[in-house]
Amino acid sequence: METVRVVLGGRSYPIHIGAGALDDAALYGPQPGAGRVAVISNPVVAGLYLARVKAALARAGAEPAVEVLVEDGEQAKSWASLERVFDALLGARLGRDSVIVALGGGVVGDLAGFAAAVYQRGIPFIQVPTTLLAQVDSSVGGKTAVNHARGKNMIGAFHQPAAVIADVGALGTLPERELRAGIAEVIKHGFALDADLVAWLEANMARLLAREADALAHVVRRSCELKAAVVAADERESGRRALLNLGHTFGHAIEAGAGYGAWLHGEAVAAGMVMAAELSVRAAGLAPADAARVRALLEQAGLPVRGPAMAPDRYLELMALDKKAARGRTRFVLLERVGQAAVHADVDERLVRDVIAAASPPAPAAAAR
Amino acid sequence: METVRVVLGGRSYPIHIGAGALDDAALYGPQPGAGRVAVISNPVVAGLYLARVKAALARAGAEPAVEVLVEDGEQAKSWASLERVFDALLGARLGRDSVIVALGGGVVGDLAGFAAAVYQRGIPFIQVPTTLLAQVDSSVGGKTAVNHARGKNMIGAFHQPAAVIADVGALGTLPERELRAGIAEVIKHGFALDADLVAWLEANMARLLAREADALAHVVRRSCELKAAVVAADERESGRRALLNLGHTFGHAIEAGAGYGAWLHGEAVAAGMVMAAELSVRAAGLAPADAARVRALLEQAGLPVRGPAMAPDRYLELMALDKKAARGRTRFVLLERVGQAAVHADVDERLVRDVIAAASPPAPAAAAR
Repeated sequence: METVRVVLGGRSYPIHIGAGALDDAALYGPQPGAGRVAVISNPVVAGLYLARVKAALARAGAEPAVEVLVEDGEQAKSWASLERVFDALLGARLGRDSVIVALGGGVVGDLAGFAAAVYQRGIPFIQVPTTLLAQVDSSVGGKTAVNHARGKNMIGAFHQPAAVIADVGALGTLPERELRAGIAEVIKHGFALDADLVAWLEANMARLLAREADALAHVVRRSCELKAAVVAADERESGRRALLNLGHTFGHAIEAGAGYGAWLHGEAVAAGMVMAAELSVRAAGLAPADAARVRALLEQAGLPVRGPAMAPDRYLELMALDKKAARGRTRFVLLERVGQAAVHADVDERLVRDVIAAASPPAPAAAAR
Repeated sequence: METVRVVLGGRSYPIHIGAGALDDAALYGPQPGAGRVAVISNPVVAGLYLARVKAALARAGAEPAVEVLVEDGEQAKSWASLERVFDALLGARLGRDSVIVALGGGVVGDLAGFAAAVYQRGIPFIQVPTTLLAQVDSSVGGKTAVNHARGKNMIGAFHQPAAVIADVGALGTLPERELRAGIAEVIKHGFALDADLVAWLEANMARLLAREADALAHVVRRSCELKAAVVAADERESGRRALLNLGHTFGHAIEAGAGYGAWLHGEAVAAGMVMAAELSVRAAGLAPADAARVRALLEQAGLPVRGPAMAPDRYLELMALDKKAARGRTRFVLLERVGQAAVHADVDERLVRDVIAAASPPAPAAAAR
């Protein structure tokens, strides 16, 4: 078992990483929630791991008073799901001293985390991420949210978990496509922050795709360390934390334009990273050979390197709505070299259009002409 | 113009108090929200003050991009109102650097504050409270929330405003009943925290009810000072801040039991304070003469000193749901003497029943026998 500590003053917390971690009662803390615990999960993950988590909680002196299962997929990050959670918690009269355990991937974590952020103005929560994406990314840093018809993650809060329990053993049951989507975020951490991680991935991608426990633990630990350092320096995403959004401005447009759920988040980020890398060559001095490394590593992981058929105008419209737009201007996270990203606010729109056109198939309307 | 500063590290903010304050462009800050501002209000208050606030914002370099009017009353603190606010903000593409101005009473402040707390994971907001209750209480301390069918303020966040602009001139148009309801919270501040304020109120109630600007400014300033000191010591309500809930455990039960809106919050707190004072005589050693001072001052202000016709069992049921219930036990804020409140967790339920029975008319069912 390894532990990465996220240092945020009174909101600091540990990330425990290892095979079998979710069975370790001690990691949930002494009598979590004064014994009053709500577990939020989805039917698939609950079928696989809920009994084990409940057994561990029971050994820690807590019996879940409430279990709420939400459907899988981004559409579950909704007001309707939140209402179901609040109804269940209030129905069981859970007070401010209770705890929410989020058992599942990013959707469950984001939803359960936001529920914990606002239930009775905030109660603690423990993340038990069961996807690679959640273990390397969404369970670190305290970002929680639900979606709005007009944009993803538009309603949310910064709410740090009390602890994260990342059991790489749970990744054995992860669908292949979700494993690859998680690897997209690991690749992102490498290109944005750590050239050594990029080199490690280039040499070890096959081990990762074969789900070797050591390889999985390595990328989870390294990703958590990298993200924890960034978050510690910039909890509220006013500066350095924005670097973690490499590929996300394009990626969010892909997710929104294709309809939430059609593309996995990691898949959209992968195609978005290719666009960001191409834009970096044009606007941030990235060597073309390094942009080629971005594309090659994503292809090695079996990830998409082109966006969906969508007109550049539609991309630009969706990107303008992105939360990172400052004063109506879309800001881009670009690579200056491998392992070093920076935020660029003044990118010529023509360059953005070029990159989109080059990395997307023609939009249907245009193709019909 | 007077300014009380709420000291909360990076979340510190000023409360500006005075007649005409809402016209003072400088108080809104230099170019608030980079010029992108949403004003949230209700139709009555907007009819009286929106044009003046917009004129002041324009002088500060900001033009409201969005105005959202919600209905008046507790029922407006709903998911539906929140959705309207988010639709409007996203429709106008307000980004993270925009600002929400809350123009109105506690309902508008709680709703707009919570919207600001979670819109794109949190944007700044400026409170322009136009009721005495909001000026002396709800706009100080960062508590924001909406209601849930199962309880008031059950979904919310701690989100401090960037500034509070408390214009006592705006209290001239306040309905009489709301003025009195606001005075209930001033009386609460006195009995819980400051015997001098109690004595001042006993001597000056007539001036306050006549809305003399000096008298209003005095109680707003003193209340803000008292509350600011408590909040500075205990932002998240784990300890001392609970003292501000004197009368609220009973009061919330009255509000919920009577149906939100039937009793004004301050009216429910007034009747709740009488119950808390009587319970204090039985369980916290308060002198009976001091409990009589509580009742007499509330009567002087024309406030209710008895609860609605509701059985003690119903009170107890509603109080058990109250957020301040720790581990299933209802905690009470009791007076040990005038100006000194304390939290009591182990109060004999029979004493609570006695006090409710003495301070409420018989419940209809019992009366029919």
